[in-house]
Amino acid sequence: MTINRRQFNYGLVASAGLLSFPRFTSQSTLRVNGQRIMDHIMALAEFGKNPQGGASRVAYSDADKQGREYVLGLMKSAKLDVKIDAAGNLIGQRAGSAGGLAPLLFGSHVDTVPEGGNYDGVVGSISAIEVAQTLAEHNVTTRHPLEVVIFQNEEGGLIGSRAMDGELTEKELDLVSRSGKTIRDGIKFIGGDVSKLADVRRRKGDIAGYLELHIEQGGTLDTEKIKIGVVEGIVGINWWDVTIEGFANHAGTTAMNNRQDALLTAAKFIEAVNRIVTSVPGRQVGTVGRINALPGAPNVIPGRVVLSLELRDLDAAKINMLFEKIQTEAQKIATESKTRFDFKEINVNIPAPTDPKIRSLISEAARDLGLTTKLMPSGAGHDAQDMARLGPVGMIFIPSVGGISHSPREFSHPEDIANGANVLLHTLLRLDEI
Amino acid sequence: MTINRRQFNYGLVASAGLLSFPRFTSQSTLRVNGQRIMDHIMALAEFGKNPQGGASRVAYSDADKQGREYVLGLMKSAKLDVKIDAAGNLIGQRAGSAGGLAPLLFGSHVDTVPEGGNYDGVVGSISAIEVAQTLAEHNVTTRHPLEVVIFQNEEGGLIGSRAMDGELTEKELDLVSRSGKTIRDGIKFIGGDVSKLADVRRRKGDIAGYLELHIEQGGTLDTEKIKIGVVEGIVGINWWDVTIEGFANHAGTTAMNNRQDALLTAAKFIEAVNRIVTSVPGRQVGTVGRINALPGAPNVIPGRVVLSLELRDLDAAKINMLFEKIQTEAQKIATESKTRFDFKEINVNIPAPTDPKIRSLISEAARDLGLTTKLMPSGAGHDAQDMARLGPVGMIFIPSVGGISHSPREFSHPEDIANGANVLLHTLLRLDEI
Repeated sequence: MTINRRQFNYGLVASAGLLSFPRFTSQSTLRVNGQRIMDHIMALAEFGKNPQGGASRVAYSDADKQGREYVLGLMKSAKLDVKIDAAGNLIGQRAGSAGGLAPLLFGSHVDTVPEGGNYDGVVGSISAIEVAQTLAEHNVTTRHPLEVVIFQNEEGGLIGSRAMDGELTEKELDLVSRSGKTIRDGIKFIGGDVSKLADVRRRKGDIAGYLELHIEQGGTLDTEKIKIGVVEGIVGINWWDVTIEGFANHAGTTAMNNRQDALLTAAKFIEAVNRIVTSVPGRQVGTVGRINALPGAPNVIPGRVVLSLELRDLDAAKINMLFEKIQTEAQKIATESKTRFDFKEINVNIPAPTDPKIRSLISEAARDLGLTTKLMPSGAGHDAQDMARLGPVGMIFIPSVGGISHSPREFSHPEDIANGANVLLHTLLRLDEI
Repeated sequence: MTINRRQFNYGLVASAGLLSFPRFTSQSTLRVNGQRIMDHIMALAEFGKNPQGGASRVAYSDADKQGREYVLGLMKSAKLDVKIDAAGNLIGQRAGSAGGLAPLLFGSHVDTVPEGGNYDGVVGSISAIEVAQTLAEHNVTTRHPLEVVIFQNEEGGLIGSRAMDGELTEKELDLVSRSGKTIRDGIKFIGGDVSKLADVRRRKGDIAGYLELHIEQGGTLDTEKIKIGVVEGIVGINWWDVTIEGFANHAGTTAMNNRQDALLTAAKFIEAVNRIVTSVPGRQVGTVGRINALPGAPNVIPGRVVLSLELRDLDAAKINMLFEKIQTEAQKIATESKTRFDFKEINVNIPAPTDPKIRSLISEAARDLGLTTKLMPSGAGHDAQDMARLGPVGMIFIPSVGGISHSPREFSHPEDIANGANVLLHTLLRLDEI
């Protein structure tokens, strides 16, 4: 028998009158099962496990598909009505008691970067399922319908959540993902149906809210010994591919003063990016993470270099200011080195502030659980930023030891994970009251 | 009827007494057929021809094999006794008049780099055959036996000439060449027989000399409007793979002051190599031609970079001095950036000076042909450096327009090619007198 959670809280027989009571917090004794979360995280870690630790569960790989099947099983055990939507997201639904309310969504992702860790995305996904299971085990029914969402291909460009908010383009479907498959083929591979993407699309107001628990992926909470990060927003991310055209020539016969070495130019550019990004105060970051020098032989001066440039900040204007400075400096380097620069904008994620009311709920939930909090930006992109287009969102961070992420050495303490899951649970219950 | 060339020179009937005459130079009226050289170069260019110009005739490819068959035909037409030796080199022999003399070798190679040009190696090979044909057409017999040698797989590591001087190892035979075939399979593919490599081996004194005509592959002769380069030696080439270990981390969440960015360190290193190599006078060169940053995603700080470092100079001591400075600077950069450097020596080609006497003969031959000369190093490696272990060698350079090489845009003027072939012819005749 499923009972209304207010009934559960008070052990009373259902009564419509109870719905008009002031907000109740006596379900505050509810707690997730921390050990079960860890068991599920470790079991999921087996899919795509790497010998050196961590996992490679790149979206649309065999390991990703198998990991998702395992997660789907957990969702079923948590008494969720599960489906794979047309975009390939895993959706686990749970009915609410009040009619006509938009659903509350919560979840994360289980795909990883190549040679990634066992916590990024996984903590939030497994904890969301654990929250659902805790509610089921205690026969708590929320007012809003609930949906646990495990978004597909977060690491490859928030593909699942961008399908949900209608941003995913036809053209993008033909891009080749890290799995080697196009996104189109990848979605099919994991059980989606790109011909029905329109069914997945939701619009502003279609969701009552979205909550995501995630590891910080930075070192702030760990260094400052704070238990819970209350995310004030997700930084904007601008990504360009930068092509430097020099002239490929024989490395033995071309005098040093007669070279148009695209890699030497790239080296000066990489240094300039670092210098410019660190030249102003703030938490902005700039990264060159990928580089390809052609033709790429030890005995040939590189004639062409293609590299990635990524800038992130909570303030889009600051990103633009930094990019302008970088472009100006690149022009100077190009003139000095007789090379040419070309900047191609690949992707822009605008900064996504979280909902102030949800931030307060997270802080209150943490406080009632005896956990310290800190307001902080998310330097990483998250599916939450796409959900912010559909309704109010909140994000909960837990400490990452040493700030390590996207690495086999990524680690969060089980206690911190359980804390985060409990904050997620109680934020959800508070949000359900609104 | 074949007559002794001294007889030819003077139109005299053969007489043993003539052999004791002082050196004669009246065969100085002999000239190669420049048009025929160009016809042959253009015909050879059809094998592996690329749509964008130039050719891909990578050793052991079908195009290489077919090009070699064409060249073998030219050698036969030049009245050479041709064979493919066990290492796969094309050898065209011509008897000498004096008994017991070691042969004079001259030639080059016809394999190319991927997307290479039509002149590197080809000019020297076709001109060597043309010299033999000119001698045949004018019934000139040299004192020494002559051998035109078209070495196989020069571009992939001087394989043919290293087989001839006994350097080629069993282990190397199993390396995969750019054709996709192992060197072992490649040699078989082009008609060699690796089980008989010992037959190919020659020892110091087995050759009376080796001459090679080649395009400069640099811009010095072209810029200075000099017709003939007299090569003073082939530079030593030291190649290291340099690994930089930083720490891969999330590009969004890792603060700028908390990074161990292996690519930023690599950028500083690449700049340092350029600064150090150009900090001392001379013609030394230093190149970083290949770079690989891992994991190689725009949103991950590179944790590891592997790059190539190549240093070249005529003086091995100078290479060592530069490398020590580079290592010291790398250590400094490593300390500042909390990264680690590891240098792995991959290959060392020691400098190979040419023979001073042959240099003089080249200069004299050029002078008598009315051509300006310049003494210069060869920044590129050549089969001549291996032949230098067996006997005196000389190399003749002609201008490369714009200094371009290993490129479809590689070009030398027909007039310069004919000049080079004539210098080769007359250097050979002078060397034959010694």
